[in-house]
Amino acid sequence: MLKTLNIPDLTPKEEITARIDKLRKGMVEKGIELAVILQNVDIFYFTGTLQRGVLVVSAEQGPQFFVEKSVYRAGMETPLDIIPIKRDKEVKDLLAEKKMLHGRCAMEFDVVPVAICERWKSLLGKDRMEDLSPIIRDGRLVKSEFEVAQFRKSGEIVERVFEKAKDIIKEGIREIDIEAELVAEGRKWGHQGFLRMRGLNQEMMNLYVTHGYSTTITSGADVPISGIGVTHAIAQGASVNTVKRGIPVIVDYGGGYNGYITDETRAYAVGPLKDLFQKPFEVARDIINETMDTAKEGTDATEVFGRAMDRVKTAGLEEHFMGHGEGQVSFIGHGLGLEINELPVITPRHRMILKEGMVFAFEPKFIFPGEGAVGIEVDFVVRKNGLERLTKTPLDIVYV
Amino acid sequence: MLKTLNIPDLTPKEEITARIDKLRKGMVEKGIELAVILQNVDIFYFTGTLQRGVLVVSAEQGPQFFVEKSVYRAGMETPLDIIPIKRDKEVKDLLAEKKMLHGRCAMEFDVVPVAICERWKSLLGKDRMEDLSPIIRDGRLVKSEFEVAQFRKSGEIVERVFEKAKDIIKEGIREIDIEAELVAEGRKWGHQGFLRMRGLNQEMMNLYVTHGYSTTITSGADVPISGIGVTHAIAQGASVNTVKRGIPVIVDYGGGYNGYITDETRAYAVGPLKDLFQKPFEVARDIINETMDTAKEGTDATEVFGRAMDRVKTAGLEEHFMGHGEGQVSFIGHGLGLEINELPVITPRHRMILKEGMVFAFEPKFIFPGEGAVGIEVDFVVRKNGLERLTKTPLDIVYV
Repeated sequence: MLKTLNIPDLTPKEEITARIDKLRKGMVEKGIELAVILQNVDIFYFTGTLQRGVLVVSAEQGPQFFVEKSVYRAGMETPLDIIPIKRDKEVKDLLAEKKMLHGRCAMEFDVVPVAICERWKSLLGKDRMEDLSPIIRDGRLVKSEFEVAQFRKSGEIVERVFEKAKDIIKEGIREIDIEAELVAEGRKWGHQGFLRMRGLNQEMMNLYVTHGYSTTITSGADVPISGIGVTHAIAQGASVNTVKRGIPVIVDYGGGYNGYITDETRAYAVGPLKDLFQKPFEVARDIINETMDTAKEGTDATEVFGRAMDRVKTAGLEEHFMGHGEGQVSFIGHGLGLEINELPVITPRHRMILKEGMVFAFEPKFIFPGEGAVGIEVDFVVRKNGLERLTKTPLDIVYV
Repeated sequence: MLKTLNIPDLTPKEEITARIDKLRKGMVEKGIELAVILQNVDIFYFTGTLQRGVLVVSAEQGPQFFVEKSVYRAGMETPLDIIPIKRDKEVKDLLAEKKMLHGRCAMEFDVVPVAICERWKSLLGKDRMEDLSPIIRDGRLVKSEFEVAQFRKSGEIVERVFEKAKDIIKEGIREIDIEAELVAEGRKWGHQGFLRMRGLNQEMMNLYVTHGYSTTITSGADVPISGIGVTHAIAQGASVNTVKRGIPVIVDYGGGYNGYITDETRAYAVGPLKDLFQKPFEVARDIINETMDTAKEGTDATEVFGRAMDRVKTAGLEEHFMGHGEGQVSFIGHGLGLEINELPVITPRHRMILKEGMVFAFEPKFIFPGEGAVGIEVDFVVRKNGLERLTKTPLDIVYV
């Protein structure tokens, strides 16, 4: 049962330096002199450690990394100097000593709760705070080659899980039994344990195994297929629904390696697929192939969506595309990174010119109420001359 | 492989009514006229559905439940009337029609991000908001018998997982392989999929399997044992560390059923336990037994902690109790509910008189740097005359 697991790399010093330099540049552009960063993923991105603390970045003077716990672990993981503290109250005096308290101060308004923001305003003696989150989100948009290397390893876990699914899926098995086995398989190959999604109420499982009826039920989540789950208290994910012949089993899995998330979907079927699903599956595959043939650095993401929509309309499948009825969502792709809802979003709603190093999941899916769903999801890195895939798993339906 | 799974109960109407009445009473006491509730767990608690929307409660006039998506699912799950909306902007006019916009307005400041609070202030035309979170946390402190019934089913999943662990744990197996198998086992018995923890940066896995060295490494989390994990980007949970003879394998598992979380720990060992761990284990068991003999409605939680600490001091184990060095935490128990960090906290820091219906995890643990850890965790419901346990799993070390 023991399998290979590479111990993940620490974030290199030059990577951390480049990220903080970019942040400081963004701060200068927006007239922000001090950034107070509290969310663990943001701290990890800028320091290389997830340990508890606060990262204060002065546009003029650079980073001050205060660590509460574990100082020992943080010291082994970050290339930055650490300032150990016992409690957050100590930060003000330490910043005052370095004459860093003047000017406009910003925090991550998209994730920091009101109570914590108010506490920091009071701790630092600030009447107001600005919003740092656009600078943080934009700063993460283009990934480095170090980051792409982490994505590739995350993609390897996805490949293993899709491979294993061939042995697990069979007629009569429950969605949750497939899910349980495949989540375990991913973990044994080194999956980090859970996936992160930014913002209030953004909850995410590692794996969604859905089939027939359960693929067609809408949830509050902004996704085309969420599943029913085993309780309305969670309201998403695999259910006790069992696999029937000819109906696609949708396996939507998020790899997680060293923080970096991949997110792909394949369809499996016991016996030949019902006619209803055959053409939509081919359209989904065509959309992916056509996108790989045309998109590259410089392409507008709204055009990627538009071209896909043209193909959907030609096939007469608009009302089933990316959901049905109240469940229809307005995107066909979403950015990946340390969080599963990073930029870019591939939607007709916002223009976004693709740049080398952007990473996104692309997921043409079709939902047929009362019947089931079919679709594919693959992950791309934008390159100068095209798109690079993050896994080698074929797009075809797997017949088991 | 198919196992029994009861479909979870919907929250009964009288339960929802009682919860909202209590909230309104709390609002009146604090002079709050309007509560705007956005966090999904809070919405679930007060409405019985987790679908996307906003629950507005007027102290005078009661609840207005606006649902964005899925209206269909919310309608099947909540006993409240639903007001379907397409976007949150519609809420102001709908409240104005009912003359509900006057007076002091409050939101969940402990979880709602600044950007979302600012958006709602602007949507409702309010200059300021008050903090609703103390009323919400206090309102959840005492559980109903309906809730205790959900906890018991959550506890049954825990019993199954501890039973299965006997077959899985063996010399040489990696922590993550044990974790993978046991998480899968829990899922097959109906585990809801993930556990919730309230607040910024509060991340939680279903299961922590740790052993020897990995039990002794501190993390940023406010827990006595967090594990190393497989990457510093997650920094908690099972690792690739393998099981050796005579050293406890600590299995800390959170059941999850219909939203309700249980959280228990047992120690397993291959072969006889090293002497170092024998006495601390007995002290942990004694503390639990003594607490069961003495605590009941009316007991002060600080006394529960104090009595445990006396036993620890008699054994000369203070420096190993609930962590070591920078890893030592200041509590021996924490409240359970829809989130794993509810009230009460069993700590010397805050007085809290136990009341019938409070539910908490109680976890005497001892950590020995470089060696390993040992301990037990059990869940209690406070009753008039004592404590009721949520699982039947014995406290003893399991020798495999």
